[in-house]
Amino acid sequence: MNFAERVNDLVEKKNSLLCVGLDTVVEKMPPSIQASADPLFNFNKKIIDATAEYAAAFKVNLAFYEAYGAQGWQALHKTFAYLPDDVIKIADAKRGDIGNTAKKYAEAVFGQLDADAVTINPYMGFDSAEPFLQDETKGAFFLCLTSNPGSMDFQHFSNGREKLYERVAARVKEWNSRGNCGLVVGATHPQELAGIRKIAGDMPLLIPGIGAQGGDLESSVKNAAGGAALFNSSRGIIYASNSDDFALAAADKAQRTRQQLNKAGKLN
Amino acid sequence: MNFAERVNDLVEKKNSLLCVGLDTVVEKMPPSIQASADPLFNFNKKIIDATAEYAAAFKVNLAFYEAYGAQGWQALHKTFAYLPDDVIKIADAKRGDIGNTAKKYAEAVFGQLDADAVTINPYMGFDSAEPFLQDETKGAFFLCLTSNPGSMDFQHFSNGREKLYERVAARVKEWNSRGNCGLVVGATHPQELAGIRKIAGDMPLLIPGIGAQGGDLESSVKNAAGGAALFNSSRGIIYASNSDDFALAAADKAQRTRQQLNKAGKLN
Repeated sequence: MNFAERVNDLVEKKNSLLCVGLDTVVEKMPPSIQASADPLFNFNKKIIDATAEYAAAFKVNLAFYEAYGAQGWQALHKTFAYLPDDVIKIADAKRGDIGNTAKKYAEAVFGQLDADAVTINPYMGFDSAEPFLQDETKGAFFLCLTSNPGSMDFQHFSNGREKLYERVAARVKEWNSRGNCGLVVGATHPQELAGIRKIAGDMPLLIPGIGAQGGDLESSVKNAAGGAALFNSSRGIIYASNSDDFALAAADKAQRTRQQLNKAGKLN
Repeated sequence: MNFAERVNDLVEKKNSLLCVGLDTVVEKMPPSIQASADPLFNFNKKIIDATAEYAAAFKVNLAFYEAYGAQGWQALHKTFAYLPDDVIKIADAKRGDIGNTAKKYAEAVFGQLDADAVTINPYMGFDSAEPFLQDETKGAFFLCLTSNPGSMDFQHFSNGREKLYERVAARVKEWNSRGNCGLVVGATHPQELAGIRKIAGDMPLLIPGIGAQGGDLESSVKNAAGGAALFNSSRGIIYASNSDDFALAAADKAQRTRQQLNKAGKLN
């Protein structure tokens, strides 16, 4: 099974389009977890236990762990190792570098962390992407049109016929000979999403921005139809409460978000 | 002193345009170092001791450490802590993410590692860059035109008046209100470098590719004139020998590369 098939399989098995984002910050945890020996992992463990049943994927944002240095990397290891087998494990790393360096980043995310997929910045082109595409079971989601205001700065740069993000989508489709490429498209751009889906064919999409960033969930689900799509919410779920009931609140929010997504996609 | 002034100051004090790149790989070390308790740091320590006198900067490529997980991050910490005060310490991370995540990466490189500068991927635009620009003494080198073959894939995308890499250079110049922005331009593109210098004014440039990647050292030095430029060689210096004389060979190569650079720039 190649990566795209794995995504389709899990979305169906779990009856879910939801990706839970572990953007874990010590200051936002309840004091009892903050005071524990390994707050990053302890928090994640409780969130994973509470929400895994509703999620097809988890996205772990490396920045939030690197901010704690080597200790953060230990929590990252433990978090990936704790994730259950029936979810896609995404290392949200947004890496991209020349070939020999990209090979090392691929070792870090696929070897050290044993992630199923990674997010990649396409700016440096094909040889920076290639080392991530060697194993058909491991996926690479390339930044295409991102959810943030700065997406206007360069991604909309146009040659009159196509915009940069459209060219990225078209090139990544060419790179998809093993069925393991995908695209990152923010839910804050539901209109452009329809156009990207046309270019991308049935490649999997990773769609952040439906939670705290205020993207349009319903239009995004509709316009992503035609292939697998994983919709990520981070802060909206994991910080649904910052009291001791945080895991329960996260489970409730994850369940409701899954329902909203399924309703929009008429999967249920 | 803002970052650009710090670069100018050190280039003058050290009489050097050389940046030594620590792309450290265990398999390429002599067996005696490979067998030591902390080969990544032990190798770096000997390279730093041997070459620091000839270098204005060191660039530490995070990928090569993350490939060893938490242990790699520990070596990264120790390496940054060991670098002397009279060099610019660059975390070659090529990061870029939405604002709240970029803030965490800034904590990782400037807080945890205490780097003087970081390399940034511009694809996600201004809000992904802003968290790295808060402290005028800390620099951010933005990928503009990279040294690898894949630089042709998107960086040359043109609207007829300017190419993407030229737009990046122009925007980064606008972001440079604190004097702490710079650009990464590969020495494999000496002709384009002259045009980028015109757009960039006197912003510092970080120029990789003069060593193993085969970029043109002389033309690059000439065409980068008009502001500070740091020329990086990684593999060409640190693997000048893979026997027990590696540190001596690295020192010799660093000294000769500094001379070549100074001759080309007529600093000597």
